[in-house]
Amino acid sequence: MPSRYLSFRCSLPWLLLLLETLFLIYSSFGFKGVGDIFYPPSFYPEFQDVNHMVIFGFGFFLMVLRRYGFSSIGFNFLLIVLGVQCSVLVEDLLNFLRLQQNEVGMKSLAKAVVSMTAVVISTGAVLGKANPVQLIVMTLVELIIFYVSRCINRTLLQVPDQLTLMHVHLFGAYFGLAVTSRFPEPPPGLDKNRSTPKSDLFSMLGTVFVWVFWPSFNSILADSKKEAVLNTYFALAVSAVAAFLLSALTSKDGKFRMAHIHSAVLAGGVTISYTAPSIQHPWIAMILGLLGSVITILGSHCLQRCFNPALKLQDTSGVHFTFGLPAVLGAVAAVVLFVVEKGMEKQWNNLSSLGYLILVDVGAFCQTISTALITGLITGLILNIKLFKAVHVSKYFDDQFYWEVSF
Amino acid sequence: MPSRYLSFRCSLPWLLLLLETLFLIYSSFGFKGVGDIFYPPSFYPEFQDVNHMVIFGFGFFLMVLRRYGFSSIGFNFLLIVLGVQCSVLVEDLLNFLRLQQNEVGMKSLAKAVVSMTAVVISTGAVLGKANPVQLIVMTLVELIIFYVSRCINRTLLQVPDQLTLMHVHLFGAYFGLAVTSRFPEPPPGLDKNRSTPKSDLFSMLGTVFVWVFWPSFNSILADSKKEAVLNTYFALAVSAVAAFLLSALTSKDGKFRMAHIHSAVLAGGVTISYTAPSIQHPWIAMILGLLGSVITILGSHCLQRCFNPALKLQDTSGVHFTFGLPAVLGAVAAVVLFVVEKGMEKQWNNLSSLGYLILVDVGAFCQTISTALITGLITGLILNIKLFKAVHVSKYFDDQFYWEVSF
Amino acid sequence: MPSRYLSFRCSLPWLLLLLETLFLIYSSFGFKGVGDIFYPPSFYPEFQDVNHMVIFGFGFFLMVLRRYGFSSIGFNFLLIVLGVQCSVLVEDLLNFLRLQQNEVGMKSLAKAVVSMTAVVISTGAVLGKANPVQLIVMTLVELIIFYVSRCINRTLLQVPDQLTLMHVHLFGAYFGLAVTSRFPEPPPGLDKNRSTPKSDLFSMLGTVFVWVFWPSFNSILADSKKEAVLNTYFALAVSAVAAFLLSALTSKDGKFRMAHIHSAVLAGGVTISYTAPSIQHPWIAMILGLLGSVITILGSHCLQRCFNPALKLQDTSGVHFTFGLPAVLGAVAAVVLFVVEKGMEKQWNNLSSLGYLILVDVGAFCQTISTALITGLITGLILNIKLFKAVHVSKYFDDQFYWEVSF
Repeated sequence: MPSRYLSFRCSLPWLLLLLETLFLIYSSFGFKGVGDIFYPPSFYPEFQDVNHMVIFGFGFFLMVLRRYGFSSIGFNFLLIVLGVQCSVLVEDLLNFLRLQQNEVGMKSLAKAVVSMTAVVISTGAVLGKANPVQLIVMTLVELIIFYVSRCINRTLLQVPDQLTLMHVHLFGAYFGLAVTSRFPEPPPGLDKNRSTPKSDLFSMLGTVFVWVFWPSFNSILADSKKEAVLNTYFALAVSAVAAFLLSALTSKDGKFRMAHIHSAVLAGGVTISYTAPSIQHPWIAMILGLLGSVITILGSHCLQRCFNPALKLQDTSGVHFTFGLPAVLGAVAAVVLFVVEKGMEKQWNNLSSLGYLILVDVGAFCQTISTALITGLITGLILNIKLFKAVHVSKYFDDQFYWEVSF
Repeated sequence: MPSRYLSFRCSLPWLLLLLETLFLIYSSFGFKGVGDIFYPPSFYPEFQDVNHMVIFGFGFFLMVLRRYGFSSIGFNFLLIVLGVQCSVLVEDLLNFLRLQQNEVGMKSLAKAVVSMTAVVISTGAVLGKANPVQLIVMTLVELIIFYVSRCINRTLLQVPDQLTLMHVHLFGAYFGLAVTSRFPEPPPGLDKNRSTPKSDLFSMLGTVFVWVFWPSFNSILADSKKEAVLNTYFALAVSAVAAFLLSALTSKDGKFRMAHIHSAVLAGGVTISYTAPSIQHPWIAMILGLLGSVITILGSHCLQRCFNPALKLQDTSGVHFTFGLPAVLGAVAAVVLFVVEKGMEKQWNNLSSLGYLILVDVGAFCQTISTALITGLITGLILNIKLFKAVHVSKYFDDQFYWEVSF
Repeated sequence: MPSRYLSFRCSLPWLLLLLETLFLIYSSFGFKGVGDIFYPPSFYPEFQDVNHMVIFGFGFFLMVLRRYGFSSIGFNFLLIVLGVQCSVLVEDLLNFLRLQQNEVGMKSLAKAVVSMTAVVISTGAVLGKANPVQLIVMTLVELIIFYVSRCINRTLLQVPDQLTLMHVHLFGAYFGLAVTSRFPEPPPGLDKNRSTPKSDLFSMLGTVFVWVFWPSFNSILADSKKEAVLNTYFALAVSAVAAFLLSALTSKDGKFRMAHIHSAVLAGGVTISYTAPSIQHPWIAMILGLLGSVITILGSHCLQRCFNPALKLQDTSGVHFTFGLPAVLGAVAAVVLFVVEKGMEKQWNNLSSLGYLILVDVGAFCQTISTALITGLITGLILNIKLFKAVHVSKYFDDQFYWEVSF
C-alpha cells in the first residue's frame, strides 16, 4: 500500500509542524516569563523522578510486543514531549482566563508530566493499532478533555487540585478502552502481538523503573509528602508480593507468568494514589496494595476470557486490569476510608454534611469515568474516519511500517 | 518431575500468603503510625538512589546466566519486597522490646533496604540452584540472624548503629557461601551456567547502576555525608581503573574479561564501606579502592582454581571475591587506620584503652563472620531437607522451570 | 597478528599502573583534605544525575555498532573514571599554582565530570577505530588542553567559569573530528560499522537517559538553576518533536530513522547550553531547540554525503552533527541574544563597550574551536605513530579484538 503510506507521510510532518508553530506562537505571546512562587530545593529531584518514570519507565514498560520495540519507546517519547508542551499551554490558558498569574514554573511542568500519564495509559490500550497521526490527535483531545474534567471536579465539586490529578489512571484507562473498542480487531492467527523473552525483559526493566519511582509520583504534588511516600512504598511492596503469589496460584503448573508480574506489581501504587497522603496507618496501605493486586490478576483472567471477547475489545497491553480496575478500587476505598475516619471522629450526628461530602467524592468519580468513556468512544470514531488513514489490520504491531529497520 | 513440581506449587503461594498475613496482622497492631523525628529534605533522593540500586541495579547485576534472566530479576525483586517488610517489622519489634518509640519512618525503611543487601548477596551465591521457597526461607532466616548479629555488636561491643549495618557485605557473602556449600554441585558438562554477550550486557547495565549509586549507599546513614560520598567516589574510580588493569594482565592474550570488570569495579565501594565517613584524605580512599580491586581479581583466580574445587563450592556469581574478600580487607583496613590515627594523635601512652578499642573492632568482625558461617551452614542443611523440594541438578539455572516462557 | 597484539598487551596495563601511581602520589602530597565551602543539600542529587548521565547514559548512547557493545560501554566507563581523577588533579594543580585554596569537594568533582563530556564526545568520533592505549592518551591530552583553553577564556577574555565549561560540546566534537581525520578509513564493504535493532534499542535506552538528565547537566553549575532547568526542558522537548518531524520528512517513504532520533533529540540541550540560565522567555528556548534539531538533521545529510567523503572523514557516531553543529549554533545564538538584550535596554549609545563584549564572546568561541582543531590534528598524528600500535582497519569495530567473548 505505497499510496496509502505516502499520504500518511504527507500528513504527519505537517501536523507536527502546525502544532509546534501554534505552541511557539502562543508561548511567545502568552507566557509572562519563567518563575515560580513555591520552589523548595527538594522539588527538583522528585520532578526528575517523575519525568524519568514517565518517559523512560513507561516507554520500556510498553515494550511487550515482539516487533514493536522502536515504536513503543519512540512514540511514547514523541507523545510525551508534545503533550507536556500542550499541557503547559492549556493550563496557562485556563489560568489566564481566570485572571490568575500565569507564570511557567517547575510546578506547572510537574502537573503537565503527571497529566501525560493518562495519555501514556491510553496509548497502551491502542498499542500497535494506531498510527502516529491518530496517536497525536488522541493525545491532544485526551489532554484537553482531561483538563476540562479536572476543572469540573475542581470548580463544581470543590475537589482539591492535587486530588483531581490522581484521577489520571482512571481517566487514561477508560478513555483508552473506549478508543480501542472502535478499532478493528486483528485477525486471530496473528503472531506479532505476542511477547518474546527479550521484549519481556525490556518490559520488566521499564516496570522496575516505574515501580521504584511510584512513591515520587504519588507524593510530588501532595501536601504531606512523607506519609504519601511511606504509604505508597508499603502498598507497592505488598502488591508485588501478592503479584507473585497470585501468578503462581492462577497459572498452569504453578509457574510465574511475566505478564502478571508486569501489571500486578504496579497495582498497589494505582490503588493508593487517592489516599496515599491521608492514610495514617501503614497496614491500611498494605491492605489496599493487596486488594489492588488481587483485583488486577483476577481481572486479567475474567476480562481476557469473558469481557473482552464479548465486547470485541482488544486491549493490547492490558490497561483495563493494570490501571483501570485498581483505580476504581482506589476510588471506592477513598470513600470508605473517609466514612470510617469521620465515623471514628463521632461525626455521625452530622449525617447530612457527611452524605454531601460522600456524594461529592462519588460524583467526581462518576463524572470522570463517564466523561472518559463517552469522549473516548467519540474520539475512537473520529480516529477511524478516512482522513486519518488508519493502519490496515495486517500491518498492526509492526515496527517496519513506521521505522527504517536494518537487520 | 510433575509430581515434584506440583508439590512445589502447593507450598509457595501459601507460604507467601502466610507471611503477608503475619506482616499485616503485626503491622495493624504493632505500628503506632507514620512518623519520623529526623527527616531532612535531602534524605528522600538518597533513599531513592539506594532503593533503585538494590532493586534495579542488583537485579540486573545478577543477570549473568544465559537462561536465568527472568528469575534473576524477578526473584531478586520478590525477595526484596518481602525482606523490606520483614526487616521493618523486626526492627520495630526490637524497638518495642526495648521500650523505645516505635514509629515507622524513612530512616527505618532505609535501614531495611540496606539490610536487604545481605540477602541479595547471598542470593548471588545460590543463584540458579535454590527454588523460590528455599530463597524465601533463606531471606527470613538471614534477616533475623543479621539483626541479632547487629544487636550483639551494638549492645555488647558498643559499635555505632550505622557501622553495624556496614557488615552487610561481609555477612551476606559468607552466609551465602556457607548455604551454597550444602547444595549439590551441578554436573561438570552443564552449559547453562555460562553467560552470553547479551546477558553480560544486561549484567553490565546493572553493574553501572550499582556503581553510580554506591556513594549514596555508603553515605545514607553516615553522620558526615560529604566525606562519605567523596571517599567512596574516589575509591570506586580507582577500583574501576584497577579492574581494567588487572583484567588485561591476568587474562590470556591480554584481553579484558567481562566477569572481572563486573566484580572488580565494585570492590572499592565494598572496601571503603567501613571507613568512608571517617577518612580525611582522598589518597587513603584511593589506595583502599586499589587494594580492593587487586584482592578481588587475584581472589577470583585463586578461589576458582584452588579453594572452590577443594571445598566443592559452587559460588555462581562469585560473591566470595566480589563482596567477601573486599569486605574482609575493609574491616582490616578500618582497624589499621584507627590505630594509625590514634598513634598520630600521640595516644600510644594509653595503650590499654587503645588495645581495648581494637579488640572491640576485631571482635565485631569475628563475631559477624563466624555467625554468618555457622548459621549459613545450618540454614543450608535445613534448606536441603525433603520438605523444601530442592531442585534437581539437571534443572539448575533454568528459567523454564519457574516461568512460562514463550519463544 | 599475535605479535602486534602481545605488544599492545604489554603497554596497556603498565600505562594504567603508571597513571594510577602518579595520581596516588600527587593526591597524597597535593590535596589538603576533603572539604567544600559551598555545599547546598540539593547539590548531591544533581551531581548524581550528571554522573549517571555521563557514565550510564553516554555509555549506552555510544552502543550503536553491532559488534562493539562491550567496548562502547566498557571503554567509556574506563575513560571516565580515569579522566575524572586526572581532571580533579589538574584543577587542583592550577589552583595550587595560583595560590588559591586547594580542597577537593563535590563542586570540583562535578566540574571534572562535566569536563569529561568533551572526552566522551571525542570518543564517539573515533569509536571502534582507536585501541584503549590510544583512547587513554587522547583522554589525558584532551583534558589538559581543554583546561588550558578554559584558562585562556577565563583569564584573558574574562568569561565566567561556568560558561567556559559549556564549551565542552564544541571542544569535544571538533577535537574528536580532527583526531579521527588522521585515522585510516575502514574499507567500504565493511559490515561491522552498522547497527542492528538490538544495538539501536540499547542506544535509545542511553539516549533517553541522557535526554532526561540534560536539565541537570545544564543547571548544575549555573547561578539561576530554575531558569536553566526550565529553558533546557522546553528546548529539549521542542527538539525531540522536531527530530520526529524532520526524520519523517527527510527519509525515504516517510519512515522514521532511529539514527536521526538519537542525535536530534539531544540537539536542543546542546544548543541551549550557553544561554539556558540567562533566557527569560521560554519561547526563545523553544526556538533554539527547534533550530538545533533542524541543523542536526540537515547537517547529518549534508555532512555524510558531501563533507565527510571529501575530507575522507569517518565520524562513527556522528558527533559532528550531534554535538558540533548545535554547539556552533548555540554560540552564535548566545551572541545574538546578548546583542538584542542590550539593544532593548537602550545601550546602543555605548557602542564601543558593546562591541568589546561581543568581541570577547566571539573570541572565546574562535579560540576554543581553533585550539580543538589544531591540537586534535596533532593528537591524531601522534596517536598513529608506531609506538601506539594502531589497530589494523580489518579489526575495526570488533569487540573480539579487546574482550574475551563467549557465545
